[in-house]
Amino acid sequence: MEPISLQTALASFTEQWSPRIVTTVNDYDVRVAKVEGEHLWHVHEDTDEFFLVLAGELHIALREAAGERTMVLPKGSVFTVPRGTEHKPYAHVLTEILVFEPTGTLSVGDRHDEVPDHVDATTGHALT
Amino acid sequence: MEPISLQTALASFTEQWSPRIVTTVNDYDVRVAKVEGEHLWHVHEDTDEFFLVLAGELHIALREAAGERTMVLPKGSVFTVPRGTEHKPYAHVLTEILVFEPTGTLSVGDRHDEVPDHVDATTGHALT
Repeated sequence: MEPISLQTALASFTEQWSPRIVTTVNDYDVRVAKVEGEHLWHVHEDTDEFFLVLAGELHIALREAAGERTMVLPKGSVFTVPRGTEHKPYAHVLTEILVFEPTGTLSVGDRHDEVPDHVDATTGHALT
Repeated sequence: MEPISLQTALASFTEQWSPRIVTTVNDYDVRVAKVEGEHLWHVHEDTDEFFLVLAGELHIALREAAGERTMVLPKGSVFTVPRGTEHKPYAHVLTEILVFEPTGTLSVGDRHDEVPDHVDATTGHALT
């Protein structure tokens, strides 16, 4: 095992909404992704999901008991979506994110809207 | 829950080798710390430990079966110290790091050298 540059990892692929696994921590993945435009409404019933914005700006729309609201995450900010909360990430500009979640977590969750062509339904790809 | 700026979190304290918990992900903590100088040799027998360098440059000396070696992590790089591997982080310049590890993980591990005065033996402090 050697240190990994996130910049190098992000430069190694161009696909959007298609996370790459940069390392693992016990039974968790550290994934990075490039995103722009809309993901889809989905929910992870059994796990929280952590986001760190490395570049750009990520929006995360949430459906909570009190109604719908949107988190805005500029570069350098973090947010954990609680398990069981429907959410939809989106970005107006090309945005780079780091995500922590249990290995095997599907990018579109356990329940979700129809998956559009531009979104990769995956448990994360290896870096190549 | 609202997004948290890592820059704001890091600006809220000055203590070194004294991690702050910025958010949790299931039963894991996301912690940030300011470090400079030497930590101490220690080992986490039961957990991996993930490091992301936010500013500065972190060195992590490792004692492996094949001998001792040092990982150098510039800003923007990541490394996971495997469970059971003795390690000693140090930094020649003021360095800011993000760590991901199970809630309750002690900063000095399960086995360690004598804890020097400048190192905080903690499971992480709340942000204030």
